Amino acid sequence: MPALAIQAPYLLFLGSEKSPTYAKTAAGLAHWRPELCMGQLRLTPDTLDLGLPDYDVTEAAANGAQTLVIGTAVVGGGIPEAWIQLLVDALDAGLDVAAGVHTRLSSIDRLVEGATRSGRKLIDVRVPPPHIPVGTGVKRSGKRLLTVGTDCALGKKYTALALEREMKARGINVDFRATGQTGIMISGSGIPIDAVVADFVSGAAEVVSPSNDADHWDVIEGQGSVFHPGFSAVSVGLLVGSQPDAFVVCTEAGRTHIKGWPSFELPSIEAVIQRTLDIGAQVNPSIRCVGISVNTSMLSELERAEYLAQLSSDYGLPAVDPIALGVGPLVDFLTED
Amino acid sequence: MPALAIQAPYLLFLGSEKSPTYAKTAAGLAHWRPELCMGQLRLTPDTLDLGLPDYDVTEAAANGAQTLVIGTAVVGGGIPEAWIQLLVDALDAGLDVAAGVHTRLSSIDRLVEGATRSGRKLIDVRVPPPHIPVGTGVKRSGKRLLTVGTDCALGKKYTALALEREMKARGINVDFRATGQTGIMISGSGIPIDAVVADFVSGAAEVVSPSNDADHWDVIEGQGSVFHPGFSAVSVGLLVGSQPDAFVVCTEAGRTHIKGWPSFELPSIEAVIQRTLDIGAQVNPSIRCVGISVNTSMLSELERAEYLAQLSSDYGLPAVDPIALGVGPLVDFLTED
Repeated sequence: MPALAIQAPYLLFLGSEKSPTYAKTAAGLAHWRPELCMGQLRLTPDTLDLGLPDYDVTEAAANGAQTLVIGTAVVGGGIPEAWIQLLVDALDAGLDVAAGVHTRLSSIDRLVEGATRSGRKLIDVRVPPPHIPVGTGVKRSGKRLLTVGTDCALGKKYTALALEREMKARGINVDFRATGQTGIMISGSGIPIDAVVADFVSGAAEVVSPSNDADHWDVIEGQGSVFHPGFSAVSVGLLVGSQPDAFVVCTEAGRTHIKGWPSFELPSIEAVIQRTLDIGAQVNPSIRCVGISVNTSMLSELERAEYLAQLSSDYGLPAVDPIALGVGPLVDFLTED
Repeated sequence: MPALAIQAPYLLFLGSEKSPTYAKTAAGLAHWRPELCMGQLRLTPDTLDLGLPDYDVTEAAANGAQTLVIGTAVVGGGIPEAWIQLLVDALDAGLDVAAGVHTRLSSIDRLVEGATRSGRKLIDVRVPPPHIPVGTGVKRSGKRLLTVGTDCALGKKYTALALEREMKARGINVDFRATGQTGIMISGSGIPIDAVVADFVSGAAEVVSPSNDADHWDVIEGQGSVFHPGFSAVSVGLLVGSQPDAFVVCTEAGRTHIKGWPSFELPSIEAVIQRTLDIGAQVNPSIRCVGISVNTSMLSELERAEYLAQLSSDYGLPAVDPIALGVGPLVDFLTED
């Protein structure tokens, strides 16, 4: 399986974006993988500044950059016409170009011509690799942790990355495994699981976390929710193919309904735990929940402490806010026996 | 949504196939939709005979045929080179050409040229339509029955078609809804659900069974099994998008393991019922099981009667062999209150 791979060091392209929200890929890379980010390219002086050295494509290439990463998403997911010449220049300067936006780089003739001329690659992170096999369900060596959720967009990727960092700091043999475009940009490899054809979703998850050393942990980025009215197929296929030994439930304090599906109440943490155990046990009978990770940004500091303590007491599991407090208690619990 | 549609009457193309197993699309069409099948085209005298009039493409077109349907699947799923000229002749004679094999008709230059020249269509039944929406989960009017399974290939399509026929015979307002290539050939429309990108599986299921009259039943062809190690994402997405009011569990007497996955025991009927209720209730709290449909071809007539009686007693539900005995008791149970 030719897993998608993006060569570092990266030059992060920010266009003229001023909002961190729309630059979350670049910001995520700078936050989680500073060692891979050699610089930034900003089109205007008031473009968001990630605190990296500013380069143009020629300077970046001369300083060893391998890939220009488009680190922003414009509304609509396109590549603005005004960027095309700069991307062609990047290819001609000897850089690959990687993007995770909806528009495929390979659908733009001038970029394809530039890549052919320079011998560099266009990397469309949203496009799954070819020849993904059907899932086998056969147990693989090594250990796996999956972050699951009550909904989309409440910290599954962040929690997985924080777990990887904390486990690495404790000397554990661990890798983050990406299943979405921003995660793939951050880790440099992975499969955009939601873009895989349904018959191959669990097979893709098997490819994402292959057999490994017996003491090795894959921390796999979850997607969606098993209760999601639109995306449960993605979540179930990922769960079945991941065969996790452990999982962490991610949620957001104060969220009452599935985001964008206002007629669906957010499932309870208890329901998510039970359904994840039910489905996960099909492929790994020893699956267990090792904690709860909550985005508590809507709460005050005092409310947060009370909320997490109550959750922890209710479920007999560690409950953390990974941004405010880190994920140490989850790793304590995971490794305590 | 431009649902795929195949224009009748059909000329069934059997190549030189001698085995009913590899001619199951043609045989299924002749069995379930005889009124749509105006003739057959066989390349040799010893080719399988479906009892339809033999025509060549010119005669068939002169007699009103609209579509040549490739009704056989060769091992590997290709279109033999020896057929191409005949398919071009069919296009030139004024027929569309439809196929459900892996090789796309539209990937063969001579066929594309023929279709352009004649103004007729190439219909690749395995290719989902473009622009499938994400599932909304919003309840649609009309009633829905889904056939689910303990595994693949044990009668979900047959059971659904038999239910449609039996319900029609009783004057019920009903339509079979196809989700696989053979079913699509038989019904003339549908979406090959296992070929849809994961994010859109439940949305595709919603498109397959749109809002309808309050007294109308969609009988939806199920796929795979919620317990399948390779295909559960397909089954779950189809279940969530179908929002069934009723479901029938399909199984095979004597099958002990998931076919092709020898380390996985066949799930129990009870487990399939419970999991289907659990997941189905996310989008339709009134979901219920209305019976069990069993392929008992491995049993003697006496064994079959005992086996079905025992199942019926164990579950308090009608249990039938749809081929040997029909599905009348399932429709009795479905309509009794």
